[in-house]
Amino acid sequence: MSDSPSIELPADVTCLETGLTFDELQVGQRFLTGTRLVDQAAVQAFAEVSGDDNPVHLDPDFARRTFFRGVVAHGALTQAVATGLGWRTGIFKDTLIAIAENHANYKKPVRPGDELRVVFEVLEHEADPQPKWGHVRFGLTVLNQTDEVVALGTWYCLLRRSR
Amino acid sequence: MSDSPSIELPADVTCLETGLTFDELQVGQRFLTGTRLVDQAAVQAFAEVSGDDNPVHLDPDFARRTFFRGVVAHGALTQAVATGLGWRTGIFKDTLIAIAENHANYKKPVRPGDELRVVFEVLEHEADPQPKWGHVRFGLTVLNQTDEVVALGTWYCLLRRSR
Repeated sequence: MSDSPSIELPADVTCLETGLTFDELQVGQRFLTGTRLVDQAAVQAFAEVSGDDNPVHLDPDFARRTFFRGVVAHGALTQAVATGLGWRTGIFKDTLIAIAENHANYKKPVRPGDELRVVFEVLEHEADPQPKWGHVRFGLTVLNQTDEVVALGTWYCLLRRSR
Repeated sequence: MSDSPSIELPADVTCLETGLTFDELQVGQRFLTGTRLVDQAAVQAFAEVSGDDNPVHLDPDFARRTFFRGVVAHGALTQAVATGLGWRTGIFKDTLIAIAENHANYKKPVRPGDELRVVFEVLEHEADPQPKWGHVRFGLTVLNQTDEVVALGTWYCLLRRSR
C-alpha cells in the first residue's frame, strides 16, 4: 500500500440483517462499510441526476487544463456514495428514521476508477424527550483504495429506540 | 400560494454566459436559480447511483408506515439537485475552482413531484495569499414549489480572481 492508513480501521460490518437501535449504539463505536467503485459511468449518471454537467467531471481534455489536472468526481457524488455505503452496512435498516444534517469537507480529489469505503464513528448520542427515538451524530471518514482520506463528514440522525 | 415565502427572493439569474469571479462577488449578494422537478424517476436514478435503496425512497407501501408517511426523496438528492441548480445559473462557469465543503440541514421532506429552486447568498468573502484565487462561503436556501424551506446549506468554494 503506497500510503499508510491515517486511521485505524474497525472491523468491516458489510451487511447486518437487522439495524442497530439508538440503545445499541454508544459513543466511540466504529463501523467500516464495504467498498464502492466510482467509475466514469457513475460520474456521468450523477451529472444527469444532479444536473451538474461541469466539464471538469466529464471532459478529460477540459479537465486536464484545470486546477485538478484531470477528471474529478463531483464532491456531492462522494457524499451520495457514502450514503449508499452506509445504508448497505445494514446498521440503519428499520432503525434510521431520518438524516437531519449531512456535512462534508472534501480533502482530496476522487478520480474515476477510485474505490471508496467509509468509517462511521458514533460521535454524539443523546436521548430525546420523546421516548421512541434518540439523536446520534456520526463522523464519517471516506477513504480511497490506498486509504487516503478523500472526505470527512458528519450525519446527524434520528434513530428508533426499539424495533 | 399556500405558504408565504419565508425569505425575500432575489432576481432569477437563470443562466449567465460567463461566471462571476471572486472580485465580482461581495457579501450579501444573492442569486436565485432556475427550478428543477424532483420526480420518482430522479429518486430511482439517485438510489442507483448512490446505492441507497432504502424503501422509504422507493416503496410507497413501506414509506406510508414510516415517520414520513409517504415516499421522500433522499436528502443527499436534494443536495445533489442544489449543485446542479447552482451550476446551471452560470455564476460558477470557468470561475469555480473547487467546492471544499458542502453542508446541508434538511428542514422538510422533499416528495416526488416537488419542484426545487435555490437562493445562493454570499456569506463570507476572503482573498487568499495566493493572488489567483479567493474563498467564498455561500449560504443556500432550498425552496419547494410553495416556497417552503426544505433545506439550508453552505458551500465553501475556491474561486478564480480573473478569467
